[in-house]
Order: sequence, then C-alpha cells, then structure tokens
Amino acid sequence: MQVQAPVALAIHGGAGTISRKKMTPRLEARYHAVLERALRAGHDILAQAGSSLDAVTAAVVVLEDSPLFNAGRGAVFNAAGKHELDAAVMEGARLRAGAVAAVRRAKNPVLLARAVMEKTAHVMLVGEAADRYARKAGLEIVSPDYFSTPQRLAALERARQRSLEAETASDADRHGTVGAVALDSMGNVAAATSTGGYTNKMAGRIGDSPIIGAGTYADNRACAVSGTGDGEYFIRSALAHDVAARMRYLGESLEQAAGGALAEVAALGGSGGLIAVDARGNIAMPFTSAGMYRGSVRAGDFFVGIFR
Amino acid sequence: MQVQAPVALAIHGGAGTISRKKMTPRLEARYHAVLERALRAGHDILAQAGSSLDAVTAAVVVLEDSPLFNAGRGAVFNAAGKHELDAAVMEGARLRAGAVAAVRRAKNPVLLARAVMEKTAHVMLVGEAADRYARKAGLEIVSPDYFSTPQRLAALERARQRSLEAETASDADRHGTVGAVALDSMGNVAAATSTGGYTNKMAGRIGDSPIIGAGTYADNRACAVSGTGDGEYFIRSALAHDVAARMRYLGESLEQAAGGALAEVAALGGSGGLIAVDARGNIAMPFTSAGMYRGSVRAGDFFVGIFR
Repeated sequence: MQVQAPVALAIHGGAGTISRKKMTPRLEARYHAVLERALRAGHDILAQAGSSLDAVTAAVVVLEDSPLFNAGRGAVFNAAGKHELDAAVMEGARLRAGAVAAVRRAKNPVLLARAVMEKTAHVMLVGEAADRYARKAGLEIVSPDYFSTPQRLAALERARQRSLEAETASDADRHGTVGAVALDSMGNVAAATSTGGYTNKMAGRIGDSPIIGAGTYADNRACAVSGTGDGEYFIRSALAHDVAARMRYLGESLEQAAGGALAEVAALGGSGGLIAVDARGNIAMPFTSAGMYRGSVRAGDFFVGIFR
Repeated sequence: MQVQAPVALAIHGGAGTISRKKMTPRLEARYHAVLERALRAGHDILAQAGSSLDAVTAAVVVLEDSPLFNAGRGAVFNAAGKHELDAAVMEGARLRAGAVAAVRRAKNPVLLARAVMEKTAHVMLVGEAADRYARKAGLEIVSPDYFSTPQRLAALERARQRSLEAETASDADRHGTVGAVALDSMGNVAAATSTGGYTNKMAGRIGDSPIIGAGTYADNRACAVSGTGDGEYFIRSALAHDVAARMRYLGESLEQAAGGALAEVAALGGSGGLIAVDARGNIAMPFTSAGMYRGSVRAGDFFVGIFR
C-alpha cells in the first residue's frame, strides 16, 4: 500500500478575463459550470487514487472541448485567419514531458502532447508533422474549422482594426489559455497547459504554453506550474521553472515562489497569472491581470472564481 | 565613457565528437581552424567595444557556414530525409530573446532568431511561417539542399540501419550543435545556439537549442549559457535557466552552477555539455560526453580543444 497523501487540483481558463461590465450573470454561470466540470473530471480521478497526470489531462480536455476558452474548440484566430494550437504536459516524478505547437488538426492538443511524451523519444513536435503523428497515434482528428467560433472571428476583426489604429487589444481578446496542476495520492505532481495563443498573432508564433520551463513545469521536489498571460515575457523569465527553482534553491514556500516568479515577469513589463501545487498539496493561484478564470479543489472543498 | 570590463567569449561545435581513432591530424586541423575563425570573428567585435550579442551572432554564423558542424550548412538529415533547423539568441541586459525552429530556407538560422527578437513582438516562430518571415526580413534564403553534405546523408543511412537493429547512434551522428556565449565591455552577456537537431529525428521534432531556458539563456545577473547534447533531457531539466538560477539563488560560482545543472541532466540519464560566461568574465565549459568541440578567449588568450 502506498501512503495516501491529500490530493489537490487547480485549473485555470486564462488570465485576462472579459470586463466585469460585459459579464452577464448568465455568461458567468456558464463559465462557472465549465470550470466546475473540469475540476470534477480531474478530481474524480484523484479521488479514485488515479494519477495526477491523468487528472490534469482530463481537466484540460474539458476546457479544450468548451468553446468558452481559448484552447481546442474556441481557439483564437492568428493573423492568417487560422488556428494554431499549442499544448504541453509534464509529470514531476521523473520529469517526463511532452509538447506540441502550431498544430491544426488534433482535436485535443493536450492528448497529443501526452502521446509525444509517452510514445516517442522526443519532448516536442511542431506543425504538420505533429498533426501527422496525431493520426498515427490514433487520436481524434478534426477539420481546422472545428475550432472556430463566431466570437473569436469577431475578435480577430477587432484586432485587425486596432492594429491599424495602434491600440492595445483587450485582455479577453488576447488571452484565455487553459491549464491544470495536480497532486495525486502517490505524492506525484503534474501540469498541463493548452492554448490557441492570442488573437492576430503571427503565423508560426509559439508562446509559453508548450515551452517546458516557461508555461508548464512539474518536479516532485518542488511543484507543478501552469501559466497564462503575456507568453513572450513568461518565456524570457522561464516562469514555470523559476517557481520550482525558487522553492528548491531559496527554500521559498509555494506562495512566495509563485509571487516572486510573477514579479520577475512584471519587472519585464508583462502580466498574467499562474496556478501551482506543491508536493504537500498547497495551492497558489496568483495573477497580476484584472482577473483569471480559475478553480481549485482540496480536502473536498471546491472553489471557482473569475475576478479578484 | 563606459567602464571597460574584461571581455570574454566561448564557443562550442557540439558535445559528442567523432572518436579519437577516426580523427586524423588533417581533419583535426580543419576543426581547429574553423573554431579559431569563429572565435576571432566574435572576439574582433568584442575587442572593438562591440556588443556581446553581435559577437555571439558572428561566431555562430561562422560555424553555421562551415559544413563540419551540425548547424546551417552541414546540418543533419531528419527521418524524412530533410533538414529542419533550430536556433536561438538571448541577451542578458533586458532578457530579450528570439528563436526559430523547423526552418528550412533561412541560410543562417541564428540571424533569423535575432530578427524575430529585434523586429517582431514575438520570441519564437516555427516552420514555413518562420521561413516566410526570413524572406520578409531580408535575410538570405537558400534552397533546402544547400544544407546537405554527403557525410550527413551517410549518417542518415547508418542511423536507419541501426534503427532496424535497435542500436544506439554514435555521438558524432547524433550531435554537433553549435553555440557561443560572450561578455562585452559594457558588462552585458549574450548567448546563441544553432542546430540541425540529430540524425533521423522525427520530422517536426524540436530539441533544446531554440528553447529559451533549455539550450539557451542569458541574464546579466548570472550568466549566459549555450548547451549541446541530449536535447530532450536538457529541456526536461531546463538546463540553461537552471545554471542561472543556481548562481542567483544558491550563490554558486559559474563553475559550480554549470556542473550542478549538468549533474541534473545526468541524473535523468542524459549527457552533453555546455559553455557559459558570467558577468565577471569567468568561463565554464563542462561536458559529460567523450569530447566537445570548443574554444574560448579571455584576456587575449585563445584556447581550442576537442577531446578531454
């Protein structure tokens, strides 16, 4: 028998929410419902002594399948009017990791990232070759327009307008990455992140989500992290690995390390948030944006929130 | 007038060299000559108070242009019989970074990575879109077969044979990434890395070289790092950022931090090496492989080496 550790799970649906003014009670209820469904999908696995890797994968699949979030169905359009999806998974016991970027046909990029980790000798595959591998691995393939929603198309049109006027895109049009982190009853942590990037990004652009150490990292000796925000800044500060490094090398708590790493991003001029869980089941969900779609469950207590 | 700091430069042409037995004096002299030319290209810039970013770029261009190394001309073939090139640059003053992966038409991927850093809002571009951007940025474009050499084609054939026999590829067939790190007279560090990946890699595979924090990192508060070796392991341990984190958070010397980060890779089962320079001009070039093509210059002293 393994020692049963307290399980913990946290999810995010992106930092940079729609403004409070535009949020109707009905829309807010829809966001809450999907976040709760994702939490329950992950927690059911943990409660039955399943792995943190299975839990974060299951939670992210729910968020990818919802058109409300910028990952899988509902992904943003890039400057070429297309979807290019990025995802990563990592498990903290052996530091195994998998990632994909600029994929266009795999229905659930997080499952493709996991297949790369579990079934290839590689950590990261990109582009059409990654989609071809999805087919070979037996994953569900969809037409690229499966990911499209009218709301995201409208956002692209607004972004193209704004680009001409040299204005800044609203948080909601830019972000919406999803992710999950978990601790299972074996004491193993895992992280997963999935995104469409941001509206009007250049074709071929990769953000932090699929970059191991930037938007996604997991190490049992420290914590599991999934980030969301200004991806370029997260890459430059190696945000997710920085949280783990601060815990391991500075002896900081999860909360301190998460805050310290986000402060490095802020010092560069970037904003966003992250979710993190450590090997004791502590959860941190700091963000420097106006809001962050998020949820957590620990000791049977469910929490879902959007604004500060 | 700026305070003149001592300048320093180190380069590598890959960990995992050809075996001593196969190295003829004539071939060794050729390697030495190119390494020295790359060192001089970078050092000339530093000696004239140029930037570390210019120095590492110039050194890597020399190595990319040489067919001896697995970057630019002379890049390995992937499993599809094609070249897919990856590169990154980073400067330590403002943590700006640029990277490209799976490019096939830009003659010098390191220059494309730098253009991404300096001329776009992004850090990383991949695939055909990155090659299209190279054209737009006015960089030199070549036919994909410009990168091919008979030696690399033979290596692919050997790898395909070995794959059938489930043997391990020799170091020389697998590696050969190039990189440079420098400290300039302003006290700024920079790093650059460029690679063809490894022979018979899956199409679309990305290794550590273009991953900021894995194969490439630079931060004036710590050091600049360029790695070479088992890329998947370097990604999983966030090798380059780990060196910087150990210096910043543990107060380790450059030598200690570089060794400690490589030990993490070794604990996972990976091998390779790295070059690093800190803000005082210290240089470290540790490797756990049989050899590493490398060179350094500090206080006017040039060093070039291949084996231990």
